[in-house]
Amino acid sequence: MSIRTDLAVEAKEVYEKENSRKIQGVEVSNSNKGKIKITNVKVVTEEGAKAMGKPKGTYITIDMPRLIHYDIDAMDDVSEVLGEELSKLVNLEDSMTALVVGLGNWNITPDALGPKVVSKIMITRHLKELVPDSIDERIRPVCALAPGVLGITGMETSEIIKGVVDKIKPNLIICIDALASRKMERVNSTIQIGTTGISPGSGVGNRRMEISERTLGIPVIAVGVPTVVDAATMANDTIDMVIDQMINSAKQGGDFYNMLKTMDKNDKQSMIKEILDPYVGNLMVTPKEVDMVIDSISKIIANGINISLQPALGREDIDRFLQ
Amino acid sequence: MSIRTDLAVEAKEVYEKENSRKIQGVEVSNSNKGKIKITNVKVVTEEGAKAMGKPKGTYITIDMPRLIHYDIDAMDDVSEVLGEELSKLVNLEDSMTALVVGLGNWNITPDALGPKVVSKIMITRHLKELVPDSIDERIRPVCALAPGVLGITGMETSEIIKGVVDKIKPNLIICIDALASRKMERVNSTIQIGTTGISPGSGVGNRRMEISERTLGIPVIAVGVPTVVDAATMANDTIDMVIDQMINSAKQGGDFYNMLKTMDKNDKQSMIKEILDPYVGNLMVTPKEVDMVIDSISKIIANGINISLQPALGREDIDRFLQ
Amino acid sequence: MSIRTDLAVEAKEVYEKENSRKIQGVEVSNSNKGKIKITNVKVVTEEGAKAMGKPKGTYITIDMPRLIHYDIDAMDDVSEVLGEELSKLVNLEDSMTALVVGLGNWNITPDALGPKVVSKIMITRHLKELVPDSIDERIRPVCALAPGVLGITGMETSEIIKGVVDKIKPNLIICIDALASRKMERVNSTIQIGTTGISPGSGVGNRRMEISERTLGIPVIAVGVPTVVDAATMANDTIDMVIDQMINSAKQGGDFYNMLKTMDKNDKQSMIKEILDPYVGNLMVTPKEVDMVIDSISKIIANGINISLQPALGREDIDRFLQ
Amino acid sequence: MSIRTDLAVEAKEVYEKENSRKIQGVEVSNSNKGKIKITNVKVVTEEGAKAMGKPKGTYITIDMPRLIHYDIDAMDDVSEVLGEELSKLVNLEDSMTALVVGLGNWNITPDALGPKVVSKIMITRHLKELVPDSIDERIRPVCALAPGVLGITGMETSEIIKGVVDKIKPNLIICIDALASRKMERVNSTIQIGTTGISPGSGVGNRRMEISERTLGIPVIAVGVPTVVDAATMANDTIDMVIDQMINSAKQGGDFYNMLKTMDKNDKQSMIKEILDPYVGNLMVTPKEVDMVIDSISKIIANGINISLQPALGREDIDRFLQ
Repeated sequence: MSIRTDLAVEAKEVYEKENSRKIQGVEVSNSNKGKIKITNVKVVTEEGAKAMGKPKGTYITIDMPRLIHYDIDAMDDVSEVLGEELSKLVNLEDSMTALVVGLGNWNITPDALGPKVVSKIMITRHLKELVPDSIDERIRPVCALAPGVLGITGMETSEIIKGVVDKIKPNLIICIDALASRKMERVNSTIQIGTTGISPGSGVGNRRMEISERTLGIPVIAVGVPTVVDAATMANDTIDMVIDQMINSAKQGGDFYNMLKTMDKNDKQSMIKEILDPYVGNLMVTPKEVDMVIDSISKIIANGINISLQPALGREDIDRFLQ
Repeated sequence: MSIRTDLAVEAKEVYEKENSRKIQGVEVSNSNKGKIKITNVKVVTEEGAKAMGKPKGTYITIDMPRLIHYDIDAMDDVSEVLGEELSKLVNLEDSMTALVVGLGNWNITPDALGPKVVSKIMITRHLKELVPDSIDERIRPVCALAPGVLGITGMETSEIIKGVVDKIKPNLIICIDALASRKMERVNSTIQIGTTGISPGSGVGNRRMEISERTLGIPVIAVGVPTVVDAATMANDTIDMVIDQMINSAKQGGDFYNMLKTMDKNDKQSMIKEILDPYVGNLMVTPKEVDMVIDSISKIIANGINISLQPALGREDIDRFLQ
Repeated sequence: MSIRTDLAVEAKEVYEKENSRKIQGVEVSNSNKGKIKITNVKVVTEEGAKAMGKPKGTYITIDMPRLIHYDIDAMDDVSEVLGEELSKLVNLEDSMTALVVGLGNWNITPDALGPKVVSKIMITRHLKELVPDSIDERIRPVCALAPGVLGITGMETSEIIKGVVDKIKPNLIICIDALASRKMERVNSTIQIGTTGISPGSGVGNRRMEISERTLGIPVIAVGVPTVVDAATMANDTIDMVIDQMINSAKQGGDFYNMLKTMDKNDKQSMIKEILDPYVGNLMVTPKEVDMVIDSISKIIANGINISLQPALGREDIDRFLQ
Repeated sequence: MSIRTDLAVEAKEVYEKENSRKIQGVEVSNSNKGKIKITNVKVVTEEGAKAMGKPKGTYITIDMPRLIHYDIDAMDDVSEVLGEELSKLVNLEDSMTALVVGLGNWNITPDALGPKVVSKIMITRHLKELVPDSIDERIRPVCALAPGVLGITGMETSEIIKGVVDKIKPNLIICIDALASRKMERVNSTIQIGTTGISPGSGVGNRRMEISERTLGIPVIAVGVPTVVDAATMANDTIDMVIDQMINSAKQGGDFYNMLKTMDKNDKQSMIKEILDPYVGNLMVTPKEVDMVIDSISKIIANGINISLQPALGREDIDRFLQ
């Protein structure tokens, strides 16, 4: 029952809270674009990587303003910022090919983010190959795949991607995935961009085996959005919060204070089990309007990716192409 | 933040726990059919109704065995039991018309149970009226409607139903609705049948205004299944459980014991708010495979209703008709 | 096998071709807004109504330019024109209520236009009633319903609408329906607005009983778009075209010329039956990308209706409200 | 405008009609199982292959009885027959892996057959690899993929399959595809099994490049069902039928007879263009209830494939596994 988070900013928070000291080997910087907050977490040493539970590399977090999904202009602003941040990582000549991969299970709404993004990507590789004269030469060849998950295909997603990459030979992969966060406040409001690929065991549906430059031989940019909190995580955090509040109220050194301080993992686990039974490990907490929100986020992400992959085109050209 | 439950069996449990005594004016009996447990809760006095927070009447609960959704035969058994229990409440001559109403919002998966059931009901009223010779005379006229919810239509569901009832003049209404339960163990595993209609404020989406014999002038049978636990309820129950465990461990009469005993609603509310922010009141806890499970339950419920409304037909006839 | 069309402009064409003379009692005028052509057909006498097979009244046809569904700006232009034309027919004070009705079967893609439009209408009636202070007083109360079709509900759509209208008492109804046209060139490219309600037997799915001011007591504006050509119509027209071409080639007065001229309905029907067997009467001709196109048209229509019903709001306000 | 058919039985009919003689190098045999007709077309010589426009190999056609989609038992019978016919072609040891590929575009209902079948296949490969002890050893490892179409992915489907096959190394591929037939009577009522793979240019959506043993190095069994007639084909056949009827009526050797006999392709093409404009090449003829029928066929096909791939299991085991 180790509490896992897919977000680098949360991993840092958890570490610093649990260890009551600042993390080493990790550099953090912040900036803002209007109401949008950008946090850059660089894991620079092995020590930092171990403390974070994440490989060395860059993790950029874009915090969307509240109520974004009710405001088309604000959505566009986030797409622009995402496009800019991605552009810094996409180091490709115009003629190089990008493969966009939508991870996740299209039958589970909050896990369907990846496949939904893929359906809104500007697909051009076949036109560049089959009818090159019909298409602006500055347009980059882009292809995309939503391979499904292990239970649907019987194949590790990384196996499928590896097979396709070996055959198609793209120069860059952008992977989109739905994540789990620790905190409700980050659900559907944070975009994380990472350069270290997708690690095993991530996401809503526990997909495994690494999709990364190490395994595929080409750069992999991961774009993730937390769309759920695991119910066990929420129960765990609720228990922690109650206990913390008790500790603050209890007399230091008193019997009760000591009892609280020594409350162990087994007690917590049995409480979580009682609350969630019979569904432990299989429950998620989501906003009621999850279908609408996933739709809205998938547009934001797809637009950001399209902007970064097609620097020669304006937004209108992209919209026209996609319709 | 009063903790509400749509289930009579839970209302009784909550009352008896909070008041540490047995509820008055409520009669409970149990029976079993194979692995299926049937609980009959009769609220017989006004005192009982007040204690329960539910009108006088009969509430039948059918507890499905675990893993039901992975076993077609077991699903059929539940449909049969549901059909039998409903049949006892459907007091209609063969020629009388039933209207089946699917409440809920088809855009929110766990609230879509009602509309999904309606799509699997055997619809016959138009055939009886338009081509009576083409259809077995023992077939009951049945019609159905999934009116949507207030935010989708701009009309109270009860207004739409009242309008349609006044025009169509059915003799009975069966309403299907997705409920919220207090406990995860009841989610997607309990069917409640009630004779008192649908009360205000019920369900996942807070639909309002009563749909009942009192307002419509004809009997209303409500069939509900809890498909979510409200996240605020889960947080509240988690906090309660932690506190209860502390109380058990604390020395009776000691300072800490007294502090715990006097912990008030405001403390709890502020903790819940911190956990769920910014989504308080708008979060639900569901199993990951909610789409598949709602599909499966809607088949079970629709089959049970079809069995009860068409006593002259066998299962094969109903299946053939529906295809 | 009488060849039916839902479009007034086609009914006029058919009459004039079959009778080789101009129709009487029908006034036609044309205008253009950019690339959009607007045709106004007024059936002014009973003689005209009989010849047209349509009640006396006004039928406005908006012809969209080709490739509209690939161009967001062009789609907006059509919505504006539709909004203007509808505004001329919507004679309501600000506080009066409009009910938007989406006819058709959501399970048959080309018949799902009405329900899809309804899902994009700005719904305000409940806000005006429940939280009047929270909403701009110039906003008109609008409610909406997609009642389904006879085979799904067991009730005539007109019965459901009549029941709801009697209860809700709106001041105006706007009905949206998918139509069948005679000619492929009009499919998904023509919007017809009519003031005479929806006539029996119209549309893709043969819905019956009139929805009109005569039956409901309030004005009914019908908005329709042809989304299919009936396959039997296409086969019939193909046969006619071949025969016409033969007649042109044959020597006038010769045996063959006479044979062609006397070819009767039975011959044609048996040929159509042979081509379409075993599906006669149940086949439709649609473009392959029908799902995408119906989506696009439903946006155009919903925007036009929103513009006409909320004259106090700009497009941005409406977009923001709908998100 | 060469009239193409995906069905071997139709290719033979067309050849024999156009050439007024029996085809050479093709062996045909028939049998029946209850109301189900099985036709076995063997193309045995190169001459036969050229005449048919299909590679040498075996093409089995299963004709379903009418109204099959309204009768669960009859559907099961077809699945059994399909399972038997496939079993004869699946020459694998128990431990060998099969890959099921669902071709086609899930956004175009009649082209979505392949992806829908894949979603109902019993997927076991990952269980055999990850938790071999939890699963009956007689269960064959099966994996599946619905890769999408060129316009969605930017990659030739055959490229994706080739990449995955090289990586996963299955021993057999079963491909499912929606076909176009010449005749409405075969739409949704014929299943064709072929051993020569999927040829270029087949299907509703014109997918290209061969998927076959020749290109992939392992046996490829293709299962196809015609789900549409191309509207241009229907128009063409209608014209032919009218002309044939004229020819039969015209005096042999007369002017008109000669004119009809010499009517050329250009005349026909211009008539087809006039009928279908502006949609030539992009229109399909389908039954109205296409969504329901594709669902029903996908169950029949998936069951047949499951039966053939898991000979050690009974139908109940397969159903239980799939739920």
